[in-house]
Amino acid sequence: MNKLTLKEAQGIFYKTLLKYKLAQPSKGELVSIEDSLGRITAEPIFARISSPHYQAAAMDGVVVKARDTYGASESSPVTLKIDQDFHFINTGNPIPFGFDAVIKIEDINLLNKVKEKKNRDISGEFTDNLREENIKEIKIFSAVFPGQHIRKIGEDVVANQLIIPINHWIRPVDIGALLGGGVNQLLVHKRPKVAVIPTGDELIKSGEEIIPGKIIEYNSKIIKGLISKWGGEAQVYEIVKDIPGNLKKILLETTTKNDIIVVIAGSSAGSKDFTPEIIKNIGEVLVHGVAIMPGKPTILGIINKIPFIGLPGYPVSAIMSAEQFLKPLVFKKLGLSMPKRQKIKVHMAHQVVSRLGDEEFLRVRLGNIEKKIMAYPLPRGSGVITSLVEADGIIRIPSLKEGLNLEEEVNVELWKNLDTIMNNIIITGSHDLILDILKNELREDFSEYSLVYFNVGSIGGLIALKQNQTHLATAHLLDPESGEYNFPYLRKMLPQKELIVVNLAYREQGIMIKKGNLKKIKELNDLTREDIKFINRQKGSGTRILLDYLLKKKDINPLDIKGYSQEEYTHLMVASAVAEGNVDAGLGILSAAKAFGLDFVPVAKERYDIIIPKKYYSSLKVQKLLTIIRSEKFKKKVLNLGGYELSQSGKVIEDESISG
Amino acid sequence: MNKLTLKEAQGIFYKTLLKYKLAQPSKGELVSIEDSLGRITAEPIFARISSPHYQAAAMDGVVVKARDTYGASESSPVTLKIDQDFHFINTGNPIPFGFDAVIKIEDINLLNKVKEKKNRDISGEFTDNLREENIKEIKIFSAVFPGQHIRKIGEDVVANQLIIPINHWIRPVDIGALLGGGVNQLLVHKRPKVAVIPTGDELIKSGEEIIPGKIIEYNSKIIKGLISKWGGEAQVYEIVKDIPGNLKKILLETTTKNDIIVVIAGSSAGSKDFTPEIIKNIGEVLVHGVAIMPGKPTILGIINKIPFIGLPGYPVSAIMSAEQFLKPLVFKKLGLSMPKRQKIKVHMAHQVVSRLGDEEFLRVRLGNIEKKIMAYPLPRGSGVITSLVEADGIIRIPSLKEGLNLEEEVNVELWKNLDTIMNNIIITGSHDLILDILKNELREDFSEYSLVYFNVGSIGGLIALKQNQTHLATAHLLDPESGEYNFPYLRKMLPQKELIVVNLAYREQGIMIKKGNLKKIKELNDLTREDIKFINRQKGSGTRILLDYLLKKKDINPLDIKGYSQEEYTHLMVASAVAEGNVDAGLGILSAAKAFGLDFVPVAKERYDIIIPKKYYSSLKVQKLLTIIRSEKFKKKVLNLGGYELSQSGKVIEDESISG
Repeated sequence: MNKLTLKEAQGIFYKTLLKYKLAQPSKGELVSIEDSLGRITAEPIFARISSPHYQAAAMDGVVVKARDTYGASESSPVTLKIDQDFHFINTGNPIPFGFDAVIKIEDINLLNKVKEKKNRDISGEFTDNLREENIKEIKIFSAVFPGQHIRKIGEDVVANQLIIPINHWIRPVDIGALLGGGVNQLLVHKRPKVAVIPTGDELIKSGEEIIPGKIIEYNSKIIKGLISKWGGEAQVYEIVKDIPGNLKKILLETTTKNDIIVVIAGSSAGSKDFTPEIIKNIGEVLVHGVAIMPGKPTILGIINKIPFIGLPGYPVSAIMSAEQFLKPLVFKKLGLSMPKRQKIKVHMAHQVVSRLGDEEFLRVRLGNIEKKIMAYPLPRGSGVITSLVEADGIIRIPSLKEGLNLEEEVNVELWKNLDTIMNNIIITGSHDLILDILKNELREDFSEYSLVYFNVGSIGGLIALKQNQTHLATAHLLDPESGEYNFPYLRKMLPQKELIVVNLAYREQGIMIKKGNLKKIKELNDLTREDIKFINRQKGSGTRILLDYLLKKKDINPLDIKGYSQEEYTHLMVASAVAEGNVDAGLGILSAAKAFGLDFVPVAKERYDIIIPKKYYSSLKVQKLLTIIRSEKFKKKVLNLGGYELSQSGKVIEDESISG
Repeated sequence: MNKLTLKEAQGIFYKTLLKYKLAQPSKGELVSIEDSLGRITAEPIFARISSPHYQAAAMDGVVVKARDTYGASESSPVTLKIDQDFHFINTGNPIPFGFDAVIKIEDINLLNKVKEKKNRDISGEFTDNLREENIKEIKIFSAVFPGQHIRKIGEDVVANQLIIPINHWIRPVDIGALLGGGVNQLLVHKRPKVAVIPTGDELIKSGEEIIPGKIIEYNSKIIKGLISKWGGEAQVYEIVKDIPGNLKKILLETTTKNDIIVVIAGSSAGSKDFTPEIIKNIGEVLVHGVAIMPGKPTILGIINKIPFIGLPGYPVSAIMSAEQFLKPLVFKKLGLSMPKRQKIKVHMAHQVVSRLGDEEFLRVRLGNIEKKIMAYPLPRGSGVITSLVEADGIIRIPSLKEGLNLEEEVNVELWKNLDTIMNNIIITGSHDLILDILKNELREDFSEYSLVYFNVGSIGGLIALKQNQTHLATAHLLDPESGEYNFPYLRKMLPQKELIVVNLAYREQGIMIKKGNLKKIKELNDLTREDIKFINRQKGSGTRILLDYLLKKKDINPLDIKGYSQEEYTHLMVASAVAEGNVDAGLGILSAAKAFGLDFVPVAKERYDIIIPKKYYSSLKVQKLLTIIRSEKFKKKVLNLGGYELSQSGKVIEDESISG
């Protein structure tokens, strides 16, 4: 792999494709207008007929000759005779020869009578009614001009006029204009056909048995979805095992049926990475390795005059590489220029160190805090697909930059609507399964808001509040001296802040043990046993502080606990480690233990609060959130999790050392 | 009709629908993940399994016990034995029991040898090769930490964690995360079913014979397209004739099969507007008449507990009303909040007078001129669907505002991407069919640019240049004194501007006459005949100036020409009027005459130029345009139109009175 920069790689690839005319629309196909929605025109479309194609009444009323009305006034109205001087006419009716103006029915003093008639009987036609009533004359009280309320021929479209040019994405309104212009079918660009071939011995299809060493193949599904969103048509092939002969055969087959070939995985430096060799064998490798992260082990080439893109195997890498190389190609084959993502300036909520030499695509969440939009880096692993599920945008860190400083102003490319992003509610601090429910209920009842939480532990939450990096914090910090929750920490760490503390729940903490409790763990003292492997929570988390408090009270030396220094960041991760059998015990909440079917030895009941800066308290965001927290629906779902007591939930907790 | 404001109407409608629980998602339906793209979740989705679900190698290489490597260095490497101290491992393989770190294959000094082997023979597996080569020991030159290059269980998703909440629009990445989390199917909101019923005696289906008085029905197709874009499912019913019994029957039928009913037309004050009466009869009318323009004759109601929306019959009115009342309902039924359109500040390029009492939705094109975004009002008729085809955005003129002043700063809601809008090239001035070709070729070769032209005549173009309201102007202005084109006008009207004049074409002007020339029009003098009805171009157009020049030269009194004061704005409109037989003759270019199959009596050959401010000349926009103008492909298409001479096309024309 000789790593090229993104620009170099794109340059080489597209220059070659242009040379062979492989990056342009192929011959178009004829479709009926009604099937053309979302397709791209492959020819300019000119009107066949004018619209309107005849002079038409634009209003319901009577059609007259304008010159007959000249001089009419309130004091000397002009009387017109039916058939000779006027006709009744409805919107869309043709203007009879010799007539040149329409007077609205409302402006003729017959109207009241007519309306009454209509109210009594809606079964006949109004003009007939008038005839029945023998209306033979009308009076006109003001002059009208020639052409009044008449739609001229071609008012909308003149025959032979260009309605839409080539390379135009057809929207619903276009369909109207085309049909109005007498067009019934048109030439559109064919959707580029893309073969998507997943490879790898470790892959299984979703639904197959999940065993260690086997991974559910979903990259091809993501890539297929993207291709379809971009306007292409993907065919996903069966998973190809890592046997070079197989892949070679399938590649040669696909070139006869597709406009682009995409192979997923097999492009790294590993033992089973045959793809580059195969391409060299049956085609041409143009690029192998691009200095982007994620997305490095990308291969670009040509097989049998068909563009070939080898995407990396990790999902985030595959998507990032597809965004850079496949998306532009699909757009070129549709005759479209790539839509640019909106860019805005944001400030980094955390420092980020980035590798020199690679351009990094950093996924971030965004939150509007104190009129600054803060960017929160998401997990950077190329296997963490949820980082793209969560991402509000992408920050590109140039290859020659070593990272981003705290508070540094940077550009972000938005992946979501800015309005949506402005409605993010950022909560930083202690983790609880309640937050998942809160997030979901908020989205159910107030779908314009999104709850975004970062699990950094209770102390982390307070620090984020101090640094104006979060709207709200969650905490369950026990003060060993006073036995009080949260307030002693707030007084010490955030003396300047005006804060309101709202209880979320009282909850049970305990020792989580594998179902059946074969090792018979009964109390905290058992954790020091030689045969027990423990997993801890990270420093600064409320659960860690609780553990240390309890150990001290029981005079247990933390260093006697095997695994005390091994840390996880959430209750679920601790529960998962216990469930997998990597460790024997961990401290956490009952709901997490129940989620993994673990046994649970309660050791404490504690208060879990949400800390709200006073200035946000009356904001719409916070009020919606409190509405949810105080709702019966929310409480019922939390109680279902188990281990919660909600008598104070949603209530403001007073700092008794001050108020009392 | 008691007109309500938009807010009042929306308020009444949605309050009532909420009361009856008609503006919320109905029960969800189960779909497989692969069919869920673009659907909206009807439940929160939690991970069934962790991803990864086992400890996996994150790199290809060897798996070791970290503690064995402690103390390793370049000078004192550690030797590890296969099976006992290390195993070869590929990305994704499970970590064997007792091992805890992976070293990349590249970092082991066997690599070169292995690579050579791979290059020679790609048919086998690399690990087997190593075994064949009897590799039993490796040397480690630096210590590694426990967990290095190992993907932890749940690194991406932990079992029981919320992956996506309810009311979430499913994107390709979500599909990946869901499959990775072991989810195979999920509950999504049903697409709201919308019955769309077009009504009107005058309507015919596209493909039927087009005769005066009959209009091609396309509103239902537009509304169907919009509903599908918004996430609903429309069923378009057959056109219902204006017989109240018919409509009543169909309405009652549709309520059993749909979530929303939309009737198009029949809601005005006209003779055939029965809809309100019918709804009163079989349901409840909540609103009839909304103070918006276009869109006034809207009806909102409920029939058999199904929301009913009666859209106006004019296409622009129907769309505007659907945007205000139908779109929010579809979104509510999908559990989604309405996406907001981006708003920007723009300056009015023209004054607009608006009716007091109605909120007007003014369609505008936008152009970035001298760092100000100018807004150009499009035709305001509710029948002009092309105004929505062209629109870059909508300006809302409040009901109590009498209009917008020239240069006034106003908010516009964007209907297109801002980047696209910034790439508009605005040409104002004289009309020619060449501009259609230019627009199309530009879009074909440089699809990011759009040509936008306003046909206001040559003088209008120069005024727009003077007022910085256009990028470029087109003109063919003959100076009667000197016989020179354009320069005398530029010197007089734009003395301060540095301009570059580029020729587009020399073209033939002549008298356009109906095919066969039954009235035997041979020369301009014939226009004064009693039996000849003429149609003129507007004052300030080059063609009008040419006509006046020719008439003066021939000593013809314009007032002797019947129809001299009747004006049209484009060559095609004049040709259309002649073709329809409303008039006998008009002056215009050969290409327009040919488009309508008219006879043509040439009277002059003239120069048609594009006027470019010097400061824009080297801009990308103008250079792309000139590239097109100078291309052979463009010239060929222009010559096909007939009546053009292109020897100077694309060349800069010098003002000889200055340069010579």
